[in-house]
Amino acid sequence: MDTTGNLPHDIVNAIQSVAGNGPLALHEPRFNGNEWVYLKECLDSTFVSSVGKFVDRFESDLASFTGARRAVAVVNGTAALHVALRLAGVQAGDEVLLPALTFIATANAVAYCQATPNFVDSEERSLGMDAVALRDYLSNAAEIRNYQCINRNTGRVIRAMVPMHTFGHPVDIEALLAVAHDFHLQLIEDAAESLGSTVGGQHTGTFGLIGTLSFNGNKTITTGGGGAILTNDVELGKRAKHITTTAKLPHRWDFVHDEVGYNYRLPNLNAALGCAQLEQLPGFLRDKRLLFERYQAAFANVRGVRLVAEPAGCSSNYWLQTLLLDELLADQRDAVLIATNDAGLMTRPVWALMNRLPMYASAPKAPLPVAESLARRVINIPSSSGLGSVAP
Amino acid sequence: MDTTGNLPHDIVNAIQSVAGNGPLALHEPRFNGNEWVYLKECLDSTFVSSVGKFVDRFESDLASFTGARRAVAVVNGTAALHVALRLAGVQAGDEVLLPALTFIATANAVAYCQATPNFVDSEERSLGMDAVALRDYLSNAAEIRNYQCINRNTGRVIRAMVPMHTFGHPVDIEALLAVAHDFHLQLIEDAAESLGSTVGGQHTGTFGLIGTLSFNGNKTITTGGGGAILTNDVELGKRAKHITTTAKLPHRWDFVHDEVGYNYRLPNLNAALGCAQLEQLPGFLRDKRLLFERYQAAFANVRGVRLVAEPAGCSSNYWLQTLLLDELLADQRDAVLIATNDAGLMTRPVWALMNRLPMYASAPKAPLPVAESLARRVINIPSSSGLGSVAP
Repeated sequence: MDTTGNLPHDIVNAIQSVAGNGPLALHEPRFNGNEWVYLKECLDSTFVSSVGKFVDRFESDLASFTGARRAVAVVNGTAALHVALRLAGVQAGDEVLLPALTFIATANAVAYCQATPNFVDSEERSLGMDAVALRDYLSNAAEIRNYQCINRNTGRVIRAMVPMHTFGHPVDIEALLAVAHDFHLQLIEDAAESLGSTVGGQHTGTFGLIGTLSFNGNKTITTGGGGAILTNDVELGKRAKHITTTAKLPHRWDFVHDEVGYNYRLPNLNAALGCAQLEQLPGFLRDKRLLFERYQAAFANVRGVRLVAEPAGCSSNYWLQTLLLDELLADQRDAVLIATNDAGLMTRPVWALMNRLPMYASAPKAPLPVAESLARRVINIPSSSGLGSVAP
Repeated sequence: MDTTGNLPHDIVNAIQSVAGNGPLALHEPRFNGNEWVYLKECLDSTFVSSVGKFVDRFESDLASFTGARRAVAVVNGTAALHVALRLAGVQAGDEVLLPALTFIATANAVAYCQATPNFVDSEERSLGMDAVALRDYLSNAAEIRNYQCINRNTGRVIRAMVPMHTFGHPVDIEALLAVAHDFHLQLIEDAAESLGSTVGGQHTGTFGLIGTLSFNGNKTITTGGGGAILTNDVELGKRAKHITTTAKLPHRWDFVHDEVGYNYRLPNLNAALGCAQLEQLPGFLRDKRLLFERYQAAFANVRGVRLVAEPAGCSSNYWLQTLLLDELLADQRDAVLIATNDAGLMTRPVWALMNRLPMYASAPKAPLPVAESLARRVINIPSSSGLGSVAP
């Protein structure tokens, strides 16, 4: 493709050469499978709510697909993170390590536990938590006492870390697991964006104590709203089911609850949609990879910008296709956002860094040079799997 | 109907004479309207999730039906209660007045705010919070300092009360509002069970600062899972929408959140179901009232048990039809539960009193003689609106 040297213009052209003239959403779901059949089955049975076979099936299908020993379906990814932190033992007054570059849910889930985030840097390769920078931070700021990691500056226990697989690209999970081991931290994987992404053939979300998924409308598969908890610890899976279903003890009619639980169960109606979507996931993943390859070809000659590719040894689901502007061209980001959105091509920057938000501004943090740079340079472009299955 | 004097046997006969031989669920939804059309519209548009016209329409339809100035749809009734308490100013360390006789969600929502319940007694007439007993309790246990109600025993602020309209029967809301006024308490109405129930023609959930609804699968109308916040305070309604949608500031593409919010929005898919259900609500209410009248006739000659009727001046939605055993026959409750459930007629006792659950056992409480008695004597019987529309 010929380029003009006018970056916003060239980016509009490159996107349109792959995906057409639009208008294009950032990520649109596709309902070409059994959605209709299963929803109808759900209505006909009258089991649309807390009881029904689709919840059990969805959990079982998710466990099969990811290889986790247990999957528990919940109402959304935020709820999954909240429960994961609780099950990992995060208590009021604790601290939890998070990437500064993440969606708000990761930080809010920590706040729901009355714990405080510690924000750490990301690496440019995966866009996720940087294991080297994390180790540096902990080596300086923390010490181990009685097998607990203590933040020297605050005196509080750092209980866990929650790396996130950004836009579907797997974080360097093995290196992070080593840090977690050395500093006595629980590791929870925020795999909200990475359903279908693997590291060395193993599904993201199955490396740590608990992993969490999201099936929001903009995700690779959707249940309307929904999420899941993954774990290889069967007892922990049972606990997850119990506290996400109001902690009610099983009984033919009595209503007795043995702890403060949550009403986080996924309705059967939404699980029905999820079962149909999951059947199509292999096709979605194939199309999303094809879309990446087409974009890569289209952007090959556009100077000053590159498409983020899966890290070595990993397979990414390519949830959101991501442009990274050169540092010197970061000041053109808003012009690119304006030109693309004005052309009907939905694009967006990455989230505001968590440490920049008023409610988290005073939380402890490591130096964040890479996250600060990425926050100025990332642009997500139209990524619907349907765009990968049509001829350019 | 002839009765035998064998209470379990007579109750099985009375239920069957009205509702048939079963098997009968406790409360089954009916999908005879536009459920199908709206769900299909939802899938065809691809807007199943956080954006879509059915959420706006459902909120507007709920506001019209209830007469509330603003309705905000959320993911379930528990979430609605949690947010209502937050918006009412309930803070960590506060106390909140609740009936001991309620569903677990009311108490859990208080716990989510790191506040402590105070359990108070119910009245036999409405099964709800007893305004006279509440005033007695507060007169003894609390005092007003600087316009705040302080629990003398704990030194903590009692910030709010949350009466609940049990099984759809309106609580004595005017008397409770007077107590709230005199003791400087916010009043939140847990109207989870009372959609369609009114007091003096005004819809339950619109008397206090905020009211909450539930559309769980067993409720009068269902969205699979869902709930809503009702308020006549437009500014509070805006705040409710903001913090239930992650507190994101509106912007063409930026992701900036200005406080710790929640991912409590109702998916468009579930709202589509809700719109169709709400259209049929007047018919459901008519049928549920007819069912009550049939049961009332059938139980007229059964000694030792009465059917709970709507309080004077109120219209109940008759969500769950409720038998109340005479105190002297309370020891036959389990025999009735066994006989009915064994006959395929789903019945159940009321919830375990909140003060009996381990996590709330140490919370402050008033004397609870009526709640204790009701807990031994209540039996809910099959209540689906469909049972009211068929010939006996």
